[in-house]
Amino acid sequence: MFEAAELGHHVDKATYKEEVPKLRKQLLDVQFELGEKKPFPVILIISGVDGAGKGETMNTLHFWMDPRNIHAYAMSDPSDEELERPAMWRFWRRLPPRGSIGAFFGSWYSFPMRQHIDGEKNRNYLDSYLDDFLRFERMLADEGALILKFWLHLSKDALKQRLTELESNKATKWRVTKEKWERYESYDTMRPVAEHVLRRTSTGHAPWIVVDSSDEKYRNLTVARTLLKAVKARLAETDKPAAASVPVEALDHADDISVLTTLDYSKALEKKDYKKQLELYQGRLNKLSRSKKFHDRSIVMVFEGNDAAGKGGAIRRVIGALDSRFYDIIPIAAPSDEEKVQPYLWRFWRHMPGFGKAAIFDRSWYGRVLVERVEGFCSEADWLRAYGEINDFEEEMARHGVIVCKFWLSITADEQLKRFKEREATGYKRFKLTDEDWRNREKWDQYAQAVCDMVERTSTETAPWTLVEANSKYYARVKVLKTICKRLEAEL
Amino acid sequence: MFEAAELGHHVDKATYKEEVPKLRKQLLDVQFELGEKKPFPVILIISGVDGAGKGETMNTLHFWMDPRNIHAYAMSDPSDEELERPAMWRFWRRLPPRGSIGAFFGSWYSFPMRQHIDGEKNRNYLDSYLDDFLRFERMLADEGALILKFWLHLSKDALKQRLTELESNKATKWRVTKEKWERYESYDTMRPVAEHVLRRTSTGHAPWIVVDSSDEKYRNLTVARTLLKAVKARLAETDKPAAASVPVEALDHADDISVLTTLDYSKALEKKDYKKQLELYQGRLNKLSRSKKFHDRSIVMVFEGNDAAGKGGAIRRVIGALDSRFYDIIPIAAPSDEEKVQPYLWRFWRHMPGFGKAAIFDRSWYGRVLVERVEGFCSEADWLRAYGEINDFEEEMARHGVIVCKFWLSITADEQLKRFKEREATGYKRFKLTDEDWRNREKWDQYAQAVCDMVERTSTETAPWTLVEANSKYYARVKVLKTICKRLEAEL
Repeated sequence: MFEAAELGHHVDKATYKEEVPKLRKQLLDVQFELGEKKPFPVILIISGVDGAGKGETMNTLHFWMDPRNIHAYAMSDPSDEELERPAMWRFWRRLPPRGSIGAFFGSWYSFPMRQHIDGEKNRNYLDSYLDDFLRFERMLADEGALILKFWLHLSKDALKQRLTELESNKATKWRVTKEKWERYESYDTMRPVAEHVLRRTSTGHAPWIVVDSSDEKYRNLTVARTLLKAVKARLAETDKPAAASVPVEALDHADDISVLTTLDYSKALEKKDYKKQLELYQGRLNKLSRSKKFHDRSIVMVFEGNDAAGKGGAIRRVIGALDSRFYDIIPIAAPSDEEKVQPYLWRFWRHMPGFGKAAIFDRSWYGRVLVERVEGFCSEADWLRAYGEINDFEEEMARHGVIVCKFWLSITADEQLKRFKEREATGYKRFKLTDEDWRNREKWDQYAQAVCDMVERTSTETAPWTLVEANSKYYARVKVLKTICKRLEAEL
Repeated sequence: MFEAAELGHHVDKATYKEEVPKLRKQLLDVQFELGEKKPFPVILIISGVDGAGKGETMNTLHFWMDPRNIHAYAMSDPSDEELERPAMWRFWRRLPPRGSIGAFFGSWYSFPMRQHIDGEKNRNYLDSYLDDFLRFERMLADEGALILKFWLHLSKDALKQRLTELESNKATKWRVTKEKWERYESYDTMRPVAEHVLRRTSTGHAPWIVVDSSDEKYRNLTVARTLLKAVKARLAETDKPAAASVPVEALDHADDISVLTTLDYSKALEKKDYKKQLELYQGRLNKLSRSKKFHDRSIVMVFEGNDAAGKGGAIRRVIGALDSRFYDIIPIAAPSDEEKVQPYLWRFWRHMPGFGKAAIFDRSWYGRVLVERVEGFCSEADWLRAYGEINDFEEEMARHGVIVCKFWLSITADEQLKRFKEREATGYKRFKLTDEDWRNREKWDQYAQAVCDMVERTSTETAPWTLVEANSKYYARVKVLKTICKRLEAEL
């Protein structure tokens, strides 16, 4: 894997001097086109042997290009806001929007690789991370991102020579820290790990590019040219890159039995019982939310359901049990323009709650496999890949200790009609009913199919769906509260 | 001040039961209108005697209204990301966008008030904060925000009674912490401080509203009704509220002498000297940026200048001295839609650098008093008040240890024409010249006047303007680098 990068590639001074101005002009041109058209983001990972010149390479790119739409991120220790959230949150919040370039030093790979090299964690641990990264990069690529992962390579001898040279020069001496020499000492351990990581995570859509870094001029030219070529080629593709997911037809059921039709919609609760149980579970939830064990956990609640199924009313009963400083309600409507230039899940990641907090999503990331699927707002390939991406997202939360509760509030078509008519008649509920609600209703069967697929594909052990029979509002609210209490009791 | 709030206001159960549904309907109506039209944000401060029911009041509002566009923030200890930035950053990042309501518990007032009550800080300390808050709220109001500051009041006796009652009830006992009783003990110290703060910071555009909180029902109704009335009244104002600033004419100079005309545009540097000095100052800057003393400081650089004055080139020489992981360049163009629904300075606050970092603004908040003023993109009142707001902003940074360097790169009209023509002719510089540049050029004198006013009004001891004679690019770049070095040397 590293053989070709140890051949002693070299560019002489004269060639370099001649090449650079030409290259710069081309780089500025493609960068300008990228910034104007905003067709995709470019994600660079600058990784490699410590001492191979990651920082210098990036500085050179910054200097050659227009530095205003390149952002370089040195990911060292996470802040406390980052520690309170799933590990990938700190990368999500720094993803470059379409039209700009984000360069990560110390990318997602660094931490687990380092742990394995230092002997703290075994190969299985590392591999489970690598699987996550593969899926993460797959998602980014499917969202249109151009991903280039550079591995700046030096042989052990070349590294030694480099460090010695730097150390002997007054101007660069400071760069050779004690840590750098320690890393040199562990070179032989690092190398096979790096080889393993690169082999395992080099994909067509996010390849590792190993660059011989023994000669600075060769290294700089090679990295810049590769970047230029890749951006240029992608800009030349007029259409959206073909998504990798293979569209499949939804199963054509031979009967009418589904998770929705088999619900018992006659389940109900009398007002007296409702009041008693509401108080009971609100009290329990209140106590749980103040539990010491919750201080380093958080909860994400997702409310989805038919129009007029009573999401708002259920949410209000949940928050009735909580202190308003403890939760945030995130209503999901059309994305803002800052959200539109990011991968689909970005606008949910940004609302990730910190420790001891709740995020209540009134509609959610499931919009993609519900309304966007049915109304054709995204391509079939997009919503098909969403199931896997959503499962990854929720698993990441669960792994970090976020408790994920998902509710589908289900009513029958007759009940919905009744409620629509009531809303039309009641003054202050009028604003809750729009033309869109009537239009959605016409596609009842398509939505039902989408819901069944969603439940089938995204109800997992860590983040199960709770289907709520909601023809009786009282029953539904109590079931929601009870479910949350039980989840919290089981988790804490 | 508190007398009226100790009269024992009271609402009986029957009245409450009758009033609440009516009030809720009205609240939902105005809230719906607010959310649809997005004419202004509502900022609530819920403050008052500890134990007067701040949380309960907020919970009630949340329950009565549509909780999806109210956000409540409990501001306790700042996170480490917040500690690295000026004190107001944590409030700026939580400001509600237009069309929604943000409620702050533990607002900007809490911390300095508490320090004074506990005897840690004296009255002058408190007052200097209050002055800041007055200016901050003035700015918010000028930006259109509706600000309501509630002080929930209890007499000492009423507080004692309240705590005792809560303690005797199993369900509410947990709310009476040891701290609450300690606060009770310091009631007599707190009261005159609160009176002072309220008197001093109650303004027409951001009044304090003292609410007798001895009776929960009275308290809830009063707060909700006040909110309702205020939002309703503001929605009824069809036009933008009249800004308080009094528009004044710019000084009409009797001669041609100005900070711009008195610059010596013949200042220049030979290539050989340039190279030597560039290396010298880049080396110095590099060393300074790595200084230990910079670890708990940060730097903000502002680059403004005539079109084609060489801002980009100067910035590139600055970053040539820096590690790309150390800085971020923020090009200021049109605001995003998330930025448009916030106060003007919000989009700059969000890029505030953390410790050890640099933020380089390519154009900046000065756009308001330059292009926006000249092109009429904002009202006269808006750009006139901007000078003061900008000075406050930069003083806040300086107080936190942020080093603010501001450069105006100045060229003569002849030099600009020469450069425009060069750009037209040179391939890869073509994209740098737009029709807008030619249009701006026609307004040369107006821009010059705006620059002179800007320098006169915003060049302060903590954040001085450096006017850079930029007809010679070499000279300009070196002057910029040298100025940054000197500032850093003086500050560190």
